[in-house]
This record gives sequence, structure tokens and C-alpha cells, in this order.
Amino acid sequence: MTRVITVGRDVSAPARLKADEFRRAMAEKGTFVVNLLSSPGAGKTTLLAATARHWGPRRKIAALVGDIATDRDAQRLAPLMPAVQLTTGGACHLELPLVERGLDALPPGDVQYLFIENVGNLVCPSSHDLGEHLRVVVLSTTEGDDKPGKYPKAFRTSHALVINKVDLVAHVPFSLDAASDDARSIQPRLAVWPVSALHGEGIAAWCDYLDLQRCKLLEKDVSIART
Amino acid sequence: MTRVITVGRDVSAPARLKADEFRRAMAEKGTFVVNLLSSPGAGKTTLLAATARHWGPRRKIAALVGDIATDRDAQRLAPLMPAVQLTTGGACHLELPLVERGLDALPPGDVQYLFIENVGNLVCPSSHDLGEHLRVVVLSTTEGDDKPGKYPKAFRTSHALVINKVDLVAHVPFSLDAASDDARSIQPRLAVWPVSALHGEGIAAWCDYLDLQRCKLLEKDVSIART
Repeated sequence: MTRVITVGRDVSAPARLKADEFRRAMAEKGTFVVNLLSSPGAGKTTLLAATARHWGPRRKIAALVGDIATDRDAQRLAPLMPAVQLTTGGACHLELPLVERGLDALPPGDVQYLFIENVGNLVCPSSHDLGEHLRVVVLSTTEGDDKPGKYPKAFRTSHALVINKVDLVAHVPFSLDAASDDARSIQPRLAVWPVSALHGEGIAAWCDYLDLQRCKLLEKDVSIART
Repeated sequence: MTRVITVGRDVSAPARLKADEFRRAMAEKGTFVVNLLSSPGAGKTTLLAATARHWGPRRKIAALVGDIATDRDAQRLAPLMPAVQLTTGGACHLELPLVERGLDALPPGDVQYLFIENVGNLVCPSSHDLGEHLRVVVLSTTEGDDKPGKYPKAFRTSHALVINKVDLVAHVPFSLDAASDDARSIQPRLAVWPVSALHGEGIAAWCDYLDLQRCKLLEKDVSIART
């Protein structure tokens, strides 16, 4: 016999409340928080670098960069934006308390975009709400177009899919349509941005998308404040 | 005050004993067990397909293929070898009981090489002994040569490193020497095999390496049995 025991509360509720509180506080400060998920080497750091180069001094951006070990990614980003490395020491994902500590370690000043580069992993990070406004999963063409269905939660919980390394598409067995279709069969509202973070293709459209999302968030927040 | 409480036993010891038992039983049957670790899309399935094609009917091989969801990898391998999909339903790594169930689901008959393709993840699988004789981490050139230091445990606990997608090395920022040096700074005894699983480069040497490792294991087992 199977018995269902109702405990009367959602055990993950406190974490969710904390994340909602963080999300709201960041919006009030005008900071749009983006959580980047991907496999190792899909190009999260290169995408951030390309985004920073595209915007130049026109946007104030900062990055919190998660890794198991080393501060290699923060070192790569440091010439382009304030960047703090969050080293998990073995854990396969970031959690909000570590993000908050990272935020405290950033130099003071307004930030319009806070990018959180999660640990390279298509599994664990998808279960952790970091208080982001936008969750973005990055898939590179060299990983194969069959990945969305194999790692569904990362795609289901994301707002946008960046398909990176489109410059290599002629050299690898990958169909942009097949990857998009597979991802959208999991999450129909996914915005899809094909880019080459290394060579710049598609980066302008991706940056415009971010600007529009931030704008919408701030509009909504203003309306909320007005009522 | 910090207190250290000694419980007097290694809590992971039962799992390790089980894995050792499995390893020994497989060796006694002449089956060499290889556990393949990598990021999603590094090319584990393509490497297995290339290995099967190189050997043809000269070796009896089988595969257990781990994934969060879908049986896409087992379907890809099915024309080349008996393959059973192990679907974890969310877990980011395989564990021995699931491997044992997969083994029972294989068609009867001798197997010289049992390949276990782990869930695509450079973090969680490195902490789980599946009773393998050889642990192999696959890194593709498109992931970048800085990955070993960022995911040290996968490299430290492996016997061999396959560097896949060498056919793309001219198109990506990747140095074979830098990747090998970084990996060997973590695990000096790592055997490094540069290959293109898609186009066949380096596959013969990789297959010879597997044959030698299996040969050594069976020799050793024979000696153990003799004393």
C-alpha cells in the first residue's frame, strides 16, 4: 500500500521566498540579473566578453562567475568588467547565499546587468533559483543538436537559449532547426539566439534582447510601485 | 569550539566494497569495464561508435548508456553493439545498482568490453565508483584547454584522457599541449589520446591502448588466481 503523507508546507518555500526577495531588491536598484547555464566549454565566459565588448561603456555590467575550482573565468573577464569568482569547492551549482557574498565583493556602484555565470553543468544548476530575472541556457553547435531532450530541465526552466559557435556549424553534425525545435518542444516560449561569441555574429541581436527584457522589468516595477 | 566526532568507520566503505566486488567479478568473466565521463556533447557516444567500427566483429563489446532523459544514445549505438539506456530521471550521475540492472538487461553472451557511458557531466560522476577497471575522461577541443583545472576531480580520478574533435583544432582557441599539461598537473599518470571520433583520427591507437589495458588486467587476475 502506498500512503501519501501531506506535510502541509513546501519544504523549498523558504529558499524560493529568499530568491523572490533578492529578485525584487535587485529590480528596485535597476539591476537586471541574468543566470547563465551550460555545459563546460559551451562559451558562457566568451559570450559575456562579447556582450561587454558590444556594449562598451554604454552599459554598466558586472559578473559573478561560478566554478568548482580556479579563478580562470574571473581573470578572463576582469579586463572587461568587475568580476568576482565564486568557487564552490566541489559543488556542481551555485546557490543564492554564495551569490549574495559575491555581490558584496563587487566594487561599489550601480550595475545595470549582473551576469551570474553558473558552474558548467547542464543538470544541477537548473534546480536552483538564484533570484535571477532571466535564465539563459547556452548550447554550442559542437555539442550536438540532440541535447535539449537529454537535459530537459535546463531548457524547460530557461527564458532564452543561446546557440553558440554557429561559426563551426559547417564542420559539425548540427542542425540549428533541429536543436531549436527540440528545445521548443520542451519550452515553447524559449527565445532562441544563434551567435558566435568568438567572432561576434548575432551578438548585437542578443544584446538588444537583453535591453528589451530589462526595460520590460523596470516598466513593470515602476507600475507596481505606482499602484 | 569545533569538535571532531570520530565515527570509527568510513561511511562510503560499503559502496566501495560493492564496487570492488563487481570489478573482480567482471574481471573473472573476462569483461573489461570502462567508465566514460565528459561534458554533454564532448563525444562519448561518437567515440564508442568509432571504437566499435574500428574493431568490427573482432571484439565483443556492449554499452550501458546513462542519461537524464531519452534513449537517444542507446538508439544511436544499437546498430553497432548491444546497448541499454540507463535513464536516471534527473540524477546527474550513474550509480552501481543501476549499472547492474543494465547489465542484466543486456542480451546473454560473453562481453570483452563493457562501456559505461556516464551522464554528460564533468562534476557528479567523478565521485561515483561504478566498479570500472578504467576511467576515461573525454574532453573536446571545442570546450577549451582550460577545463582540467576547473573540473579537477574528473581528471584526477581518471586513468586516461581522450581529447576529442582534434579535426576542429584549427577553428577553435585550443592547445593540445596546454590541455594535456593542465590535466597532467592534476594527474601525472594520465594517458592522453588525441582523436577525432567523427573522422577516425587516433582511433586505432586508442583501441590498442584499451586492448593493452584489458590484457594487463587479465594477466594480473590470472596471477592472483594462481597463488
